[in-house]
Amino acid sequence: MSAIVTLTTDFGLVDAYVAVMKGVILSINPEANLVDICHNIKAQNIPQAAFVLSTAYQFFPMKTIHLVVVDPGVGTKRRAIILKTPSAIFVAPDNGVLSYIIQELSNKAIDDDIGRQQVNLESELEAVAITKTKFSHSPVSTTFHGRDIFAPVAALLSLGFPPIDFGETINSINVLPVPHPYCKSDGTVMGNILHVDIFGNLITNIKQSDLSKAKKAPVIEIGKELITGLSHTYADGVGMVALMGSSGYLEISLKGGNANNFLSVGIGHEVKIRY
Amino acid sequence: MSAIVTLTTDFGLVDAYVAVMKGVILSINPEANLVDICHNIKAQNIPQAAFVLSTAYQFFPMKTIHLVVVDPGVGTKRRAIILKTPSAIFVAPDNGVLSYIIQELSNKAIDDDIGRQQVNLESELEAVAITKTKFSHSPVSTTFHGRDIFAPVAALLSLGFPPIDFGETINSINVLPVPHPYCKSDGTVMGNILHVDIFGNLITNIKQSDLSKAKKAPVIEIGKELITGLSHTYADGVGMVALMGSSGYLEISLKGGNANNFLSVGIGHEVKIRY
Amino acid sequence: MSAIVTLTTDFGLVDAYVAVMKGVILSINPEANLVDICHNIKAQNIPQAAFVLSTAYQFFPMKTIHLVVVDPGVGTKRRAIILKTPSAIFVAPDNGVLSYIIQELSNKAIDDDIGRQQVNLESELEAVAITKTKFSHSPVSTTFHGRDIFAPVAALLSLGFPPIDFGETINSINVLPVPHPYCKSDGTVMGNILHVDIFGNLITNIKQSDLSKAKKAPVIEIGKELITGLSHTYADGVGMVALMGSSGYLEISLKGGNANNFLSVGIGHEVKIRY
Repeated sequence: MSAIVTLTTDFGLVDAYVAVMKGVILSINPEANLVDICHNIKAQNIPQAAFVLSTAYQFFPMKTIHLVVVDPGVGTKRRAIILKTPSAIFVAPDNGVLSYIIQELSNKAIDDDIGRQQVNLESELEAVAITKTKFSHSPVSTTFHGRDIFAPVAALLSLGFPPIDFGETINSINVLPVPHPYCKSDGTVMGNILHVDIFGNLITNIKQSDLSKAKKAPVIEIGKELITGLSHTYADGVGMVALMGSSGYLEISLKGGNANNFLSVGIGHEVKIRY
Repeated sequence: MSAIVTLTTDFGLVDAYVAVMKGVILSINPEANLVDICHNIKAQNIPQAAFVLSTAYQFFPMKTIHLVVVDPGVGTKRRAIILKTPSAIFVAPDNGVLSYIIQELSNKAIDDDIGRQQVNLESELEAVAITKTKFSHSPVSTTFHGRDIFAPVAALLSLGFPPIDFGETINSINVLPVPHPYCKSDGTVMGNILHVDIFGNLITNIKQSDLSKAKKAPVIEIGKELITGLSHTYADGVGMVALMGSSGYLEISLKGGNANNFLSVGIGHEVKIRY
Repeated sequence: MSAIVTLTTDFGLVDAYVAVMKGVILSINPEANLVDICHNIKAQNIPQAAFVLSTAYQFFPMKTIHLVVVDPGVGTKRRAIILKTPSAIFVAPDNGVLSYIIQELSNKAIDDDIGRQQVNLESELEAVAITKTKFSHSPVSTTFHGRDIFAPVAALLSLGFPPIDFGETINSINVLPVPHPYCKSDGTVMGNILHVDIFGNLITNIKQSDLSKAKKAPVIEIGKELITGLSHTYADGVGMVALMGSSGYLEISLKGGNANNFLSVGIGHEVKIRY
């Protein structure tokens, strides 16, 4: 059974950057099973990469290696890290792209009223700053660490090398604020749009647990639109529907259409839930 | 030799939906060989998915499993089905996305003057409605059966489980009308554009057999354009050319340009052939 | 260890053309490891394909087979060729798509003041014109040699068949002019933009060796913009930066933005370097 290495980047599908990383990995581990998660992350958009990765990684087999290269700080002093969790190994720049994963695993909210911060890691998480360059492509470029550092490290991890072989243990890593919904004194839940998918579905940061105390059907307010009650499927009802989506978040969808285009909202837009 | 599982969806390449399905498949069968057919089917466009799939499946090895998730009715009572043919196995919603395959294998035209219908299956075809959920992701979401039902079933089929393990045999499945050319009393062949490819080539529903009785060079009329005779290659002649394309259909192409943009036509547009 | 076959085409990701080629290859060699280099080459853009391929192929393992199908002359008398180098095997139409590879390996510049030409091959290069059709898909279409000739040949090469099995040795192949920088009598280096990547970075044809004699910081002139000195990373400085990119070429980049959109330049635009 060959090791799986997934790739998440903002390199797009027009240049050969992704293929170069795959060539480097296969040169080190010809048996690596390479799976694309997404290469259409918007240029340097760390929050989007963090979200998209978070929706996918838990569906891969145990010990999958997830390589993430959305790296506006390439060549600067930002750290390159390996994060080993009980189920997977991540290789990424230390720029917040693992924020959702850290949050899920540490079972504590990352406050969203502060900016980027360092969080201490729980004991079941092992993190290493990549400082040993003997395994790297030589010379290491200042502009393509995906090729020269991240890909070789991921390939060697897929061969079974332990993370510590690549550097020193670290106790904290950088996270970005993950926007959380909150409840106002009048009971209104205030949330935001985290992501807009290809269908124009608006994926909010509101989970079932944010709604569970409600006895009445919620009224969802977004832009000038009011949606009463939750649907079970995209095909339910007419016009705008709200439902608990497959990622566990409340989604707003337009039956047979594109909710995002129709509402002209977008990532970050406010969503209110009242009863 | 590892089993091949192909994927055809309207999930695009911006979200992680495709990767999630791949993760689910590899969690069940780590040796599955995953091949993308197309993920850029327009949202919920069943006819387009049916056509694109039909142009590709016969080029894969025997016993390839083709997973198709273009599924506007996800979560409703539409059936999920497995279709086993002499050469391949298809896993898809029962919404017409297998129409071309059924038509080719049943050797009979699906009338295009009626709407969606059920057709009875020939004896060499085995179809199963997926009703057993013990193999499914639990709980099954109402919005992502690609992840929760279709991917697990495809993965288990790739391990050799027989279709009947997943539900009950059915004798008919839903098909969409596949538009056929017809011949008017004056001998004019009336056809339509089925597909516009990335080059802007217009792929019609007219096959060689629709032309074979002609003794003179055909005159192809599309929009205001008249094309006389068939070319052998895209590089032949100047301007608009018509030729028998690689999928067996008459194509209309603009040398060095994009015929679809030039003619402003599109899928469904009428094509006439006279002599 | 399975043989790697890479694919570079202008077939896009909306039709099933790429999948068809993969199906054909896997039907012949089910163990082939298929890796996409790029399928978003602009329609029939041979220079772009030549450049993109040249940035990727050297990062793949020895003996990788690179299949390139950007083929405006499909079905005409243009030759289909196999080029075997000390590190890799290429299968492509003989239309100049291997120009950069030939140039690198022959260690001599291809003059850019003349049009397409034939170059004689160095002794360590083996080239074969594909003339034997017994291995081809039958009948060979006139419009999709990617499926009917190139894919079967690549698959058989990946099984170990030698190139000569597919045709006759040839001593020269077609190349396109690769634009080279030149130095004016006043010491100004005159270059061009070869490629614009997904980030809007402008990749010029100027290499480190074109700059090495300079003692002072270079001043890079592009459009109305003057950039003084080279940066080490994309994150260095503010506004426009110039740096030696990961492919070995001088790149012009806009920090946090898209240099190509900002400057409204594009492929072929002039770049001057003074001291």
